Amino acid sequence: MRVLGKWLRSIGPAADGAGVEIIDQTRLPHEFIILTLRSATEAASAIKDMQVRGAPLIGLTAAYGLALALREDPSDAHLEETTALLMATRPTAVNLQWALLSLRQHLMAIPLAERAAAGMAFANRLAEDDLVLCEAIGDQGLPLIRAIANTRNRDQPVNILTHCNAGWLAAVDWGTATAPIYKAHDEGIAVHVFVDETRPRNQGASLTAWELGQHGVPHTVLADNAGGHLMQHKMIDLVIVGTDRTTATGDVCNKIGTYLKALAAKDNDVPFYAAVPSPSIDFTISDGLTDVPIETRSPREITHISGLAGNGRIEMVRLTPEESPALNYAFDVTPARLVTGLITERGLLPASREALAKAFPERVAEPASVEPR
Amino acid sequence: MRVLGKWLRSIGPAADGAGVEIIDQTRLPHEFIILTLRSATEAASAIKDMQVRGAPLIGLTAAYGLALALREDPSDAHLEETTALLMATRPTAVNLQWALLSLRQHLMAIPLAERAAAGMAFANRLAEDDLVLCEAIGDQGLPLIRAIANTRNRDQPVNILTHCNAGWLAAVDWGTATAPIYKAHDEGIAVHVFVDETRPRNQGASLTAWELGQHGVPHTVLADNAGGHLMQHKMIDLVIVGTDRTTATGDVCNKIGTYLKALAAKDNDVPFYAAVPSPSIDFTISDGLTDVPIETRSPREITHISGLAGNGRIEMVRLTPEESPALNYAFDVTPARLVTGLITERGLLPASREALAKAFPERVAEPASVEPR
Repeated sequence: MRVLGKWLRSIGPAADGAGVEIIDQTRLPHEFIILTLRSATEAASAIKDMQVRGAPLIGLTAAYGLALALREDPSDAHLEETTALLMATRPTAVNLQWALLSLRQHLMAIPLAERAAAGMAFANRLAEDDLVLCEAIGDQGLPLIRAIANTRNRDQPVNILTHCNAGWLAAVDWGTATAPIYKAHDEGIAVHVFVDETRPRNQGASLTAWELGQHGVPHTVLADNAGGHLMQHKMIDLVIVGTDRTTATGDVCNKIGTYLKALAAKDNDVPFYAAVPSPSIDFTISDGLTDVPIETRSPREITHISGLAGNGRIEMVRLTPEESPALNYAFDVTPARLVTGLITERGLLPASREALAKAFPERVAEPASVEPR
Repeated sequence: MRVLGKWLRSIGPAADGAGVEIIDQTRLPHEFIILTLRSATEAASAIKDMQVRGAPLIGLTAAYGLALALREDPSDAHLEETTALLMATRPTAVNLQWALLSLRQHLMAIPLAERAAAGMAFANRLAEDDLVLCEAIGDQGLPLIRAIANTRNRDQPVNILTHCNAGWLAAVDWGTATAPIYKAHDEGIAVHVFVDETRPRNQGASLTAWELGQHGVPHTVLADNAGGHLMQHKMIDLVIVGTDRTTATGDVCNKIGTYLKALAAKDNDVPFYAAVPSPSIDFTISDGLTDVPIETRSPREITHISGLAGNGRIEMVRLTPEESPALNYAFDVTPARLVTGLITERGLLPASREALAKAFPERVAEPASVEPR
């Protein structure tokens, strides 16, 4: 989507072949910095430090990282070792495992001398696939927004709540939850997005608000606490969130706090949709509450926060008393019963095993692609 | 409760008679500063700027402020004018109106020369009443915690979630939501409090965590987004929150985000209690969603945050893109159907018109004490 008036992608090979370019998302919205990753180690650090984040982008960065590793040493041993290194960076998003295991499998059949180039080509193809996938999510979700717009005056916006950043910054382009929003905006439908700030890492306040603003989409930032009140007062027409992993039964694991918004949506008859590209569906698990490993991140993300200080520098400040501990789960699970529907690249589906199996029959019997937990 | 090892109250007349002492709550948890308010204007500013906050403490500060005003000019006109000034500081908590109107009524019957002293005596009495009230809330709520403790080993703590600060910093002593917790802790029951940070003003992270820590109560700070996940995983035994205004029917208006926690508690069969001293019940209104005026505060509370910087100073940093607007509702309403019970000074009550009318028969027919909205 647009940044400073130009179209941009969140990741791609550097023009000079030196590595892979990413946007340093830890500096947004205050500084816009493009970094070049030159090795698998740098890719792993970028994922761990959340310079890149978001389920699709994590998977792509890992794939590019694996490809970069093969420039140094294309051996099977190095391939295995690097896959393990990258796999260990983040536990929740299924895309990471999916991308790495697909790439490893692809490379094992390729002669050593060709592996680096083949790895890069494969990663590029994954990125293209992701872009196509996200645009398809946009096309499938657009009618939801259009239908609401058709019930009101042209200048009355459709009010959409989103949580965290499932925007193009989390993918290659379009994003997942944002794809239908960008599609609607670009076709001239009046949309307005309520953006949950998404504590503790504030991906909504710092990333979603930024990317919507850059693309010209009207939006308003909210404290995470506010969404329920807005729904009670009919200020929200539709909720669209992303997902880090969705089970075969339609339980949606997403950023911590999503479940609370789903409860409020249910309580107020507001449609609640998750944008679910099929790589984020894990057909090997059925119970989101017990089967999805939930990452616990550093308490420091709660006790401290960074922002732009008066001196123009990004500074970290402490929020809590020095002696107070904090606990930081990164994701929660919204049971399928609270989900109005899933926006997939193959259409809008009810959040149910039957619907998912029917839409993705080729994946139902797939073996666990995931390491034992 | 204890601060730096000594017992302290949140408000009281200065020993030298110069005014009224408060703790500057905007500096906590990083700096502990006691301020002296010397006039009604200073009291109004302290309320507006949230150096004092919390429904009971707002009411008391206003009452002390009115008393201070009478030292300069005890006339009826000044009494009216100052009442109006103080009344306009915050719109949601009913205690403010209740304290001011009670005091005004009391003073109208008193000769001008005695008004200043009578005002101060009345404010002191309100403070004593509040302390007694909060301690009674503690006694009434304690059995809820004791009952859970009795079902487990002595060293396994009862896990209580609270939102915002309904602690002694919001009252004179004991607090409302915290009173049963302090009572339980002081009698040797193992309690552990999960403290919602409570964006955007972070009263949980900065005030509740601080006061629990000072008194020695084990606690952990959470992002507001996390409570639902913890309840899904049976990590919370009991939710206790405060209230800024509760309707005659038991709808609980409290800090924004409370409603989301009540929904999660309901969905996971976790008991959800509001600590409701009777002055915060508004018997003149029946529908919380339509009848309680919800304060909208500055967007800057969302776009900026202050904390302790590396240089040891409290600094403000910006979180959001410069062009992104923000919307900041301060309270929401939890419908009575989601409330397991109300902890009042006259006992645990169901959140219903019948129960409230039976427990407080003398107040059922009370005329609207509130200015027309």
